[in-house]
Amino acid sequence: MGKKELKIGELGEFGFIETIKDNCHYSFNHLIQGIGDDCAVIGPYNGNVFLITTDMLVEDIHFILGKIDPQHLGQKVIAVNLSDIAAMGGTPLHGVISMAIPKYMYVTPIHAIYNGMKEMCRRYSLNLIGGDTCASPHKLIINVAIIGEAPEKEVLYRKGAKPGDKIYVTGTLGDSAGGLKLVTEEFSAPESVAAVLMEAHNLPVPCIETGRMIAQSKLADAMIDLSVGFVSDLRHICEASGVGASLLHHSIPISDEIQLFAKNNNLDPYELGLYGGEDYRLLITVPPENCGRFESLFKEDTSHHIYEVGEITAKKGIQMVMEDGKEENLTVRGYDHFIEYQF
Amino acid sequence: MGKKELKIGELGEFGFIETIKDNCHYSFNHLIQGIGDDCAVIGPYNGNVFLITTDMLVEDIHFILGKIDPQHLGQKVIAVNLSDIAAMGGTPLHGVISMAIPKYMYVTPIHAIYNGMKEMCRRYSLNLIGGDTCASPHKLIINVAIIGEAPEKEVLYRKGAKPGDKIYVTGTLGDSAGGLKLVTEEFSAPESVAAVLMEAHNLPVPCIETGRMIAQSKLADAMIDLSVGFVSDLRHICEASGVGASLLHHSIPISDEIQLFAKNNNLDPYELGLYGGEDYRLLITVPPENCGRFESLFKEDTSHHIYEVGEITAKKGIQMVMEDGKEENLTVRGYDHFIEYQF
Repeated sequence: MGKKELKIGELGEFGFIETIKDNCHYSFNHLIQGIGDDCAVIGPYNGNVFLITTDMLVEDIHFILGKIDPQHLGQKVIAVNLSDIAAMGGTPLHGVISMAIPKYMYVTPIHAIYNGMKEMCRRYSLNLIGGDTCASPHKLIINVAIIGEAPEKEVLYRKGAKPGDKIYVTGTLGDSAGGLKLVTEEFSAPESVAAVLMEAHNLPVPCIETGRMIAQSKLADAMIDLSVGFVSDLRHICEASGVGASLLHHSIPISDEIQLFAKNNNLDPYELGLYGGEDYRLLITVPPENCGRFESLFKEDTSHHIYEVGEITAKKGIQMVMEDGKEENLTVRGYDHFIEYQF
Repeated sequence: MGKKELKIGELGEFGFIETIKDNCHYSFNHLIQGIGDDCAVIGPYNGNVFLITTDMLVEDIHFILGKIDPQHLGQKVIAVNLSDIAAMGGTPLHGVISMAIPKYMYVTPIHAIYNGMKEMCRRYSLNLIGGDTCASPHKLIINVAIIGEAPEKEVLYRKGAKPGDKIYVTGTLGDSAGGLKLVTEEFSAPESVAAVLMEAHNLPVPCIETGRMIAQSKLADAMIDLSVGFVSDLRHICEASGVGASLLHHSIPISDEIQLFAKNNNLDPYELGLYGGEDYRLLITVPPENCGRFESLFKEDTSHHIYEVGEITAKKGIQMVMEDGKEENLTVRGYDHFIEYQF
């Protein structure tokens, strides 16, 4: 007694996960990767593995009804799960959906959410094969679990990064964070800029095809999707691989829209890009001898984009090399569900 | 315009599911069973199939914090998912857990919930291979998705019941409903009776071993677990199989505890047994020529129990034959999340 009882808000999301991740495996038969990557990996079965991921979206935590088109919400909940499949280099196969719905909700927006989910299923050939529907006392909660597959030898993990690997991302950073600021706070942007940022936030595109192309090439060492925030997600790669990273400030890809939005609202665009989260781009590390061929993939098929942003180092921690050559230690300040509410 | 907008509470859970179950499949490669059974079934892979199920438990809908030991809550959320694997005759393999946690919750009860989940995982050799942890604005929400497996030729579906099949259940009915009444309403029972009913409600035992034994025997036509309520779950079998059922009132198994509880509280024990829900027993239909051998299975291994309660009929609908020979049509009044709150 007398010992202070800890609240979940004091421990934090990742601190909490550390406390529960032991004693989770009772049979290692066909279990390749448990907790600790974008997807769990089981198999192989005839040379293929299954990738399993789950993500929950909670009203007033992840979205505000009335501030997102319900069809877009449906698309987003599937997209964020597909992004985890993309991060391992997989192809989506099947999904199950659980939804807790306040009894007072109208059927029309719920159907619109399902239409959005089914639209994404159609685009990515994902089957909806089951689920659970129940009442909620207050808020709408949606949970999706998806099974994908990939050839065993092509799967990319967080733990594969090696010193000397170049670090790439598949698109600009921070647009979604700009969109979130437009939704929730007193910020403004010209209509065309707002449209780009809101679309990045509400309708993220999972990099399934790019992820498959990268996995199939077997040129990369490690991959992750950018969900919590670039620096936090890079830290996940570094911790899983026992390495560090050095980034070049001038090479961090920031869109014209987020530059303008940041300038108009007296914000730092790099702050949004490095810590904002929900970009759903892929971050890839590639051994130097493969970089030429890796970059060629993206030149051959111009529907995919790639930006080199730094390299993996033997020295732990994440450094940012500024334009003047000075180095800054980046501390991790990604989104943590329990330490700071997004809304 | 002018057309009344329907609320989810007016459509009901099963009515709503009817409206969303079309256009869910985009690839039939290795998809054996989608929405419409206890588990989805994919495969075969080397003669085995995977069984996939998901269930969500929501605070103040499925449980009241403070009225259930958090460790028991953890055990229950795994048990209700395992029960769906049992209903297809499968063995559990892997699970993923999503949890939305109010920031003000203490870590201790959350850890107790995880300890309960892990205790069930240990008992049933289930791996926890991933999940999602996020904040919740008010209530605790837990979603579990489980993958199991079974030999393709042994899986039992809802749709296999045939006229003439005998109907069996693997235990008494209504104990859990009695437990729920003790939790939520002004009812009472002697301590020893209350203990039995509360345990049935809080610590349901998934019939994994019994389900496997039945599936392996290949003697049954159809199987389902009793979650919504005996009559509702039997209706699911009947609708999926295009048949009806005739029940014998005197053969419905009601425990001594629920008899006493009902008598003391002026309730109908058969009402609790037929409509109460959350029994997590198995309901099995068996062709008459197999019934002798089927019943022998349970005599050989007395750790499993079985009760014959009626038979499948070509005539649709569910009839109850009373002790005096009179027949009653049973209307379905199982629990519906949106039409009537449990609490």
